[in-house]
Amino acid sequence: MIPRYARPEAADLWSPQTRYRIWFEIEAHAADAMAELGVIPKAAAEAIWAGGKDAIWDADRIDEIERTTRHDVLAFLTHVAEVVGPEARFLHQGLTSSDVLDTCLAVQLSRAADMLIEDVDLLMAAIKRRAIEHKYTPTVGRSHGIHAEPTTFGLKLAGHYAEFQRAKERLAMARFEVATCAISGSVGTFANVDPRVEAHVAEKLGLAVEPVSSQVIPRDRHAAFFAALAVTASSIERLAIEIRHLQRTEVLEAEEPFEVGQKGSSSMPHKRNPILTENLTGLARLVRSAVVPALENVALWHERDISHSSVERGIAPDATVHLDFALRRAASLMERLVVYPDNMLKNLDRLGGLVHSQRVMLGLTQKNISREDAYAAVQGNAMKVWRGEGRFLELLKADPVVSKAMTDAELEALFDLGYHFKHVDTIFARVFGEGA
Amino acid sequence: MIPRYARPEAADLWSPQTRYRIWFEIEAHAADAMAELGVIPKAAAEAIWAGGKDAIWDADRIDEIERTTRHDVLAFLTHVAEVVGPEARFLHQGLTSSDVLDTCLAVQLSRAADMLIEDVDLLMAAIKRRAIEHKYTPTVGRSHGIHAEPTTFGLKLAGHYAEFQRAKERLAMARFEVATCAISGSVGTFANVDPRVEAHVAEKLGLAVEPVSSQVIPRDRHAAFFAALAVTASSIERLAIEIRHLQRTEVLEAEEPFEVGQKGSSSMPHKRNPILTENLTGLARLVRSAVVPALENVALWHERDISHSSVERGIAPDATVHLDFALRRAASLMERLVVYPDNMLKNLDRLGGLVHSQRVMLGLTQKNISREDAYAAVQGNAMKVWRGEGRFLELLKADPVVSKAMTDAELEALFDLGYHFKHVDTIFARVFGEGA
Amino acid sequence: MIPRYARPEAADLWSPQTRYRIWFEIEAHAADAMAELGVIPKAAAEAIWAGGKDAIWDADRIDEIERTTRHDVLAFLTHVAEVVGPEARFLHQGLTSSDVLDTCLAVQLSRAADMLIEDVDLLMAAIKRRAIEHKYTPTVGRSHGIHAEPTTFGLKLAGHYAEFQRAKERLAMARFEVATCAISGSVGTFANVDPRVEAHVAEKLGLAVEPVSSQVIPRDRHAAFFAALAVTASSIERLAIEIRHLQRTEVLEAEEPFEVGQKGSSSMPHKRNPILTENLTGLARLVRSAVVPALENVALWHERDISHSSVERGIAPDATVHLDFALRRAASLMERLVVYPDNMLKNLDRLGGLVHSQRVMLGLTQKNISREDAYAAVQGNAMKVWRGEGRFLELLKADPVVSKAMTDAELEALFDLGYHFKHVDTIFARVFGEGA
Amino acid sequence: MIPRYARPEAADLWSPQTRYRIWFEIEAHAADAMAELGVIPKAAAEAIWAGGKDAIWDADRIDEIERTTRHDVLAFLTHVAEVVGPEARFLHQGLTSSDVLDTCLAVQLSRAADMLIEDVDLLMAAIKRRAIEHKYTPTVGRSHGIHAEPTTFGLKLAGHYAEFQRAKERLAMARFEVATCAISGSVGTFANVDPRVEAHVAEKLGLAVEPVSSQVIPRDRHAAFFAALAVTASSIERLAIEIRHLQRTEVLEAEEPFEVGQKGSSSMPHKRNPILTENLTGLARLVRSAVVPALENVALWHERDISHSSVERGIAPDATVHLDFALRRAASLMERLVVYPDNMLKNLDRLGGLVHSQRVMLGLTQKNISREDAYAAVQGNAMKVWRGEGRFLELLKADPVVSKAMTDAELEALFDLGYHFKHVDTIFARVFGEGA
Repeated sequence: MIPRYARPEAADLWSPQTRYRIWFEIEAHAADAMAELGVIPKAAAEAIWAGGKDAIWDADRIDEIERTTRHDVLAFLTHVAEVVGPEARFLHQGLTSSDVLDTCLAVQLSRAADMLIEDVDLLMAAIKRRAIEHKYTPTVGRSHGIHAEPTTFGLKLAGHYAEFQRAKERLAMARFEVATCAISGSVGTFANVDPRVEAHVAEKLGLAVEPVSSQVIPRDRHAAFFAALAVTASSIERLAIEIRHLQRTEVLEAEEPFEVGQKGSSSMPHKRNPILTENLTGLARLVRSAVVPALENVALWHERDISHSSVERGIAPDATVHLDFALRRAASLMERLVVYPDNMLKNLDRLGGLVHSQRVMLGLTQKNISREDAYAAVQGNAMKVWRGEGRFLELLKADPVVSKAMTDAELEALFDLGYHFKHVDTIFARVFGEGA
Repeated sequence: MIPRYARPEAADLWSPQTRYRIWFEIEAHAADAMAELGVIPKAAAEAIWAGGKDAIWDADRIDEIERTTRHDVLAFLTHVAEVVGPEARFLHQGLTSSDVLDTCLAVQLSRAADMLIEDVDLLMAAIKRRAIEHKYTPTVGRSHGIHAEPTTFGLKLAGHYAEFQRAKERLAMARFEVATCAISGSVGTFANVDPRVEAHVAEKLGLAVEPVSSQVIPRDRHAAFFAALAVTASSIERLAIEIRHLQRTEVLEAEEPFEVGQKGSSSMPHKRNPILTENLTGLARLVRSAVVPALENVALWHERDISHSSVERGIAPDATVHLDFALRRAASLMERLVVYPDNMLKNLDRLGGLVHSQRVMLGLTQKNISREDAYAAVQGNAMKVWRGEGRFLELLKADPVVSKAMTDAELEALFDLGYHFKHVDTIFARVFGEGA
Repeated sequence: MIPRYARPEAADLWSPQTRYRIWFEIEAHAADAMAELGVIPKAAAEAIWAGGKDAIWDADRIDEIERTTRHDVLAFLTHVAEVVGPEARFLHQGLTSSDVLDTCLAVQLSRAADMLIEDVDLLMAAIKRRAIEHKYTPTVGRSHGIHAEPTTFGLKLAGHYAEFQRAKERLAMARFEVATCAISGSVGTFANVDPRVEAHVAEKLGLAVEPVSSQVIPRDRHAAFFAALAVTASSIERLAIEIRHLQRTEVLEAEEPFEVGQKGSSSMPHKRNPILTENLTGLARLVRSAVVPALENVALWHERDISHSSVERGIAPDATVHLDFALRRAASLMERLVVYPDNMLKNLDRLGGLVHSQRVMLGLTQKNISREDAYAAVQGNAMKVWRGEGRFLELLKADPVVSKAMTDAELEALFDLGYHFKHVDTIFARVFGEGA
Repeated sequence: MIPRYARPEAADLWSPQTRYRIWFEIEAHAADAMAELGVIPKAAAEAIWAGGKDAIWDADRIDEIERTTRHDVLAFLTHVAEVVGPEARFLHQGLTSSDVLDTCLAVQLSRAADMLIEDVDLLMAAIKRRAIEHKYTPTVGRSHGIHAEPTTFGLKLAGHYAEFQRAKERLAMARFEVATCAISGSVGTFANVDPRVEAHVAEKLGLAVEPVSSQVIPRDRHAAFFAALAVTASSIERLAIEIRHLQRTEVLEAEEPFEVGQKGSSSMPHKRNPILTENLTGLARLVRSAVVPALENVALWHERDISHSSVERGIAPDATVHLDFALRRAASLMERLVVYPDNMLKNLDRLGGLVHSQRVMLGLTQKNISREDAYAAVQGNAMKVWRGEGRFLELLKADPVVSKAMTDAELEALFDLGYHFKHVDTIFARVFGEGA
């Protein structure tokens, strides 16, 4: 995890203390269920909760024990006994370490998903506000980086909003995928632990019961989880690339917020660089890099091998924490993005009206000019504009083929921006609901 | 696409003829809607259907035209005019090529998803049959490749069944992701085409309407699609690895079906190699390789660039066709897998009863021996078994600490396999429903 | 392999006929060596060459035989016997199929590398010619997409040339990695084949001897090979992205060649889209997608498993053929790239001289103004330019702090482009040698 | 970076203190060169060295300054001035931050490569020692996980040794790739800094001069670097998978060293799990995951964007430190690997002599039995062995076809292990040189 790209609230999900708390809860809830089943004394379960509920676990001490036992869960249980007292011997009966580890990971990933969904909500709210603000701000639509036809800046943002709406649904699915509890013993047969213990722990932790665990929770779930994060990261990248393009010197239709006192460059004081969105581009690559190892983690040997563990110690905190950071950064950025509608208009007009060429072509065909002739007329005049030999509207008016088919007024009507925006409302209603 | 790993039915989804048929349907349905709206003559729309409905499109001719126009959809439309006649000039009005291309891809990917879901059903049916057959076939559960505790072969298979059940749900979600129609014009504003045209085409093709398209359907959808395929491929790999392990000479608990007349090796005639599952392992890598380029396709520039196109020409057929092949091969293999219950039992007994060690340890603690003493007693005798100094049960009976705590009969009861299988039914009910 | 992105010469490397020819050569050279060693009759080796040297192998017939034997090399040998006659029984003695398959792959990958190196040479030649042509064509250097300081278009190209020089060296290393021959038998012990056979075949095919093969040539070699291709693909992407940026409507400093008769868009006739470089961007993603499966192929089980085979049937042809296509397309594009020096100058001047700000700042510090004061003066005036309140030079002349430190002539001298180009020659000499 | 998989010596390469030291050296060497060129006073350069040479830089203070300036190099320079005094104002003249950052990264990656090469040396030394120890330890060679023919454990290890020899060469190339220095200013034109400054710094730091930098060192170099690490990681994975297989309960030909006091499992005290090699398998996935983002970093926009930076803050420390850890762990493991030659022999004999089948087949064809008849005879008897109906040698002696062609003594000679090992020396000489 790169501290510079980690919010403390997010990083805390992966702290030793958080992990130990969850471990304790799993063990203590399991003890409750066992006490209920008569496997261990009820008083023991109560004593465990009493002694451990509010404990601050001593990570250094646990590390010290682990240096001898070389086993993290055993080291923790030894420390619990130090804190809670002799009743701790009733803990973990019939459980295997993975019951604790995998269920804990499920809790952590679920919480991470909740956090990421909240982040997406923040980002969506920011995009929505700006989309509505710029619902009818004209800007040029570009395909292949080349001016195409007019659109609005709000429509651009509506597309990103809809994409993050999908990201949110995918994250909700991802949460659903990983939110399962396994307390099933060494090879998942419940030989030494009653399935009702699992059911109890699952309910208390807000998890579903894993239908078949085999010491471990199957890793296809985690692969699907990280894939959802990766797609979300790519959606952030798409937004970031859009802004980076808009901030290019030659385009300058929008700019990242520039803090007072911030130095853009050590050597070129006039520069305002889109470093936030460039950073988001890089973070997207980092978050995506979790997908392949997560996929490679699926095919564990037989009932389990532990090759997935080191991978997850890396990708689980890194991908969730960096994606959280990226989503928050994107949200803050979108809230404060500086938009230049005047520059958008200037750019839109840059080609002397060429962005209306398709409309002119269609207009001509509606005047019973063949598609080929219309195409030729439009392309010919377009090329003149391209070479700087005039503005499109004037050239068309002067073109014999065109002027024979259309009056000047008819031609002028074809250059009306409103024509392009007549369905903006329809699209906004699809995305934001009626009335947006 | 590697022909050797392509079923004709699957490959056909991606043939030029299939593509042209879908293109025609999109254009002709759009024409219907335009006729209904009065934009083009109804007779034209009818003539188009009449002339093109059952046409076999001439791919060579279209290629020939494309060599001049350098534009695939225009080449197709020119050919349609050759076949359908002059009414074809009413086609494609207000549409952009991507309206056709992207909606066609949506149809193809949806059909591919349907096919893959059917494949998973076949595979699940095969696994279920074998799982029920071997519900109580004892086998050793292995963690880290080392014998752990008894389980049943049916339970192993139940785990794979549950995993493919999840794969099926993910593929259904993936289908949902990509099954959208966009008929929205050059930059998605519907400037020259009424949104009702899109609605009509979508309905006719069984697609949803894409809420915001920007000449293209956003590529986060496709990234999520290929990610679902990749996770499915990894689940196949897990199954394949399991079988490859079981077929190892030293294990030989199961074998791939061996055809009469098949030569396993040019040089070692006794060999029966798990080549089908090794092949599935390789195919899983191939299918997974679509994920990264699909993620890289998301961040297109502005309203679109066409960098995604060449990528999709590769990964869309390859990943779907090879995954279909892999699922079918896996299904056929599971149907005919040769299982050796005797060898499973022999292996289970291989460690002289050590697989019961945890149960013995728990049994001792229930006799008021401390966890540490129980652990020491079990570990000591286990090490003797390991060194070949006797079978576990006999050694335990002779151990002073153990024999003081337990009678021989009590010890023998701890070695009962049934103890481990008492919850098999519970797990089967979770996976296959009650009564499986 | 996507036919549209495959040159016939490249695809032919992977045709069945090419493969069978190489197989025959391997077997026949091995027969020569065995004859020399007295293992088989010399007459047999001669008869084999006589019968097979110019044979056109019947791929359909071999497929037919394979449907029975389910073994490709055995099917081929059976067919060789049909063509060459009974002496063919002396072929393949002591060999294992992989001796033939892996050595053949080494030949194919080596030839592919040779082809790719030739392609890079073509591309480098094109870039060099254009770099020298534009050695002193001024253009703005951009960091973060924002104007920074002047550079020349030739310098930009020199950077790409140097990068492809490195690509060439990496491809040469990649060729070296894979160009090994293994004729070592079932587990690589030479139990049934003399190492001198391997040495002879290696020499005849221009390969090195694989020091330790284990039925297969180790796959770390192939992973390194595909990694080299992937880095090359990324270098193509960098060039492609540069051109796509330069062709943006707002920038228009260069354009892809536009064929007479080519239609850029079905709907917007004025559009000239950088579709070649967008295509290169996509092809780069495709070529790169071979890296992960190639890395996953390395860890085969024990002496070998065959999981790598299906992967290589896909990635070996696809990655080499598509990279060849991409390099050729890039070379042709660079040969014919349309460059607009006037637009470069216009863009360079777009910020009213701000690109000279760092130089002004340095100039001020050399006049004993503190770095902080110089920074403040420059930034203040830069911001005015940014807001459209004047050109940089005039504002500086009017600034009291600046004008106190420098004369107008001194200031003007700081705006001289030549100042920035004084080391162009040094850099060109590094890249192209003296005198370029 | 996961602390648990980081050696302090490796992690220290990436500590703030190390980074600041390198930054200072770059700046101070540059100052020397500038003083030599008369650009700044010699006394200033000397004062800078005097004040900063042995300084411990205050990372917290630098962070504090950065919170205002939002620029890491400027913050550092401000702090240097605090420590070194006013002469520090002569630092960084004509430099851009990236000159410092990228050259520093080159130093760090070069040092990391040196460390990794040393690690590979350790691993190779361990493998070599064990290979020589087990040069003639018979073991079965396995293809597809199925017994094939005899080989020796030394030969297996020789293959891994040769692979790490290649890894070492690749790491040396990777070091060569990244070890370049760029001190060329804002867009790489040396506008404000003499190329001789770059040459001086490069020489002092043991780097080559980057022929064309464009504010940044081109990232194809780094992509090639991380690719070399990824291939090395996959070679570790191959070794790890081999050991994991050998340690399987049913195979048990080797075991990871087991520490006294170590608990293998909390619940199954007899278990010795190959957790080190499973961990290496996971670490290989982690190290490999750097490849894709490194490839995606290549295509920066124009002269540079900063998207690569966040990626490298993650992958540069993580991939180098975890690979170092994995190589050291692998070396230590190979030093102490517990090998069971008796079990190897037992397994080799497990198939009742079937591993000699190819040799028998060849023997029969040398007795003028046709390949088909020999194959049939061998396969028939092999199948009997397979079904447990006898040992191969005895069955062959009793077979009428075989016994007619060969005496019992001739048959017995075909079962001699020495036959398979006659070229072990040849292969060892290839790998370790003569006399190994």
